[in-house]
Amino acid sequence: MQKLEQLYEGKAKKVFATEDAALLIVQYKDDATAFNGKKKGTIAGKGVINNRMSNYLMRRLASAGVPTHFVEELSERETLVRRVQIVPLEVIVRNLSAGSFCRRYGFPEGVRFARPTVEFSYKNDALDDPLICLPHIFAMELATEAEMADIRRYALQINALLSEFWESCGVTLVDFKLEFGRLPDGTIILADEISPDTCRLWDSESGEKLDKDRFRLDLGGVEDAYAEIMRRLEEHEKA
Amino acid sequence: MQKLEQLYEGKAKKVFATEDAALLIVQYKDDATAFNGKKKGTIAGKGVINNRMSNYLMRRLASAGVPTHFVEELSERETLVRRVQIVPLEVIVRNLSAGSFCRRYGFPEGVRFARPTVEFSYKNDALDDPLICLPHIFAMELATEAEMADIRRYALQINALLSEFWESCGVTLVDFKLEFGRLPDGTIILADEISPDTCRLWDSESGEKLDKDRFRLDLGGVEDAYAEIMRRLEEHEKA
Repeated sequence: MQKLEQLYEGKAKKVFATEDAALLIVQYKDDATAFNGKKKGTIAGKGVINNRMSNYLMRRLASAGVPTHFVEELSERETLVRRVQIVPLEVIVRNLSAGSFCRRYGFPEGVRFARPTVEFSYKNDALDDPLICLPHIFAMELATEAEMADIRRYALQINALLSEFWESCGVTLVDFKLEFGRLPDGTIILADEISPDTCRLWDSESGEKLDKDRFRLDLGGVEDAYAEIMRRLEEHEKA
Repeated sequence: MQKLEQLYEGKAKKVFATEDAALLIVQYKDDATAFNGKKKGTIAGKGVINNRMSNYLMRRLASAGVPTHFVEELSERETLVRRVQIVPLEVIVRNLSAGSFCRRYGFPEGVRFARPTVEFSYKNDALDDPLICLPHIFAMELATEAEMADIRRYALQINALLSEFWESCGVTLVDFKLEFGRLPDGTIILADEISPDTCRLWDSESGEKLDKDRFRLDLGGVEDAYAEIMRRLEEHEKA
């Protein structure tokens, strides 16, 4: 499958058409942004790690019954995926308090919730991806009630599967962001990526941050953290 | 019933203890603030209008089965109310798009929704009363699921009752803010006030704004708008 014209360039990925209208090629970059593009930089090797990690995790999810856009890994930075119409929502699942939750509500970091939370933000860079509550999603007709029920159910299922997987790697899944899309027949499937760019991952013993927060918060050791997470995933893969 | 020590002074009201620990006296001021206190001013006669209007509407709601904190109007600015522990949420019901909804999502003003929406914001001036979604209310243990079910049901019932009432006065109820509190036995009741400070009220024919937006947006005729709304309510009362 060959890359044809570039359809889109995002903060961390480029997307290309292919000769099959139902399939796209995603190419992962090393570029990193944070705080809605206000902070920019590069994390050497990130594209390779995110591509491989996301594909590995999507295959795991698919085998557990979660439909995903993943089709085939084409190279270390390129993956063939199903074309979807993206639902314009970021779906955020939280197990422990961190990041925007703490800033927004003046709440301490690292508190484990009695139950995971699922929240949504409206994907709109100009508006800074504002938090959106379910009644407003329906009022703006961004998705139907049936779609949101699917999305919420998948999000919690993915959280249960990934939390267990990461725990077996000695990593706590603090929170993460998902995106979903619609196939031409309306079916909702998981799209985008699952990586240290989109997950908060803390070492289960030390609490050390092993994700993009090292870049966001200028903690140093950004490349090492991505490499460490990939190493743990690969050890699990071999075991 | 006499006012004893002042317990609290808010943006638009003072609250006093009484000799009965279960009862408070609320005193309405003419002070007006907007945008979380960033804009300040005075609306002459507002305290008198808000006190009378809020009491009238709370009596109507009570007779329709909504429990409220209203006990007795003591003077043109003072009312005896039941003491509650306030649930730290602003409960916002919307019938048409306006205000923060439009700013937040880049959405046009004045679009009527297929169904009313109920949203919550976390009452915290230092944090600018951020929008909060239901799972976060539970994660922060601000209210229980049973309490939120009561609050949501009352909010929609109040919206139906007030929308019908205002329509009969030639006024469209665009959106409004409620606050609820807990009695010592845990019962949820309506507290705070219902007035042009807390409701968006548009003339049904002309669309003219007859509420605090005239102050917020420097539209002029602020006192006249409050007086006009009160006049329509009194005409209804007489009819």
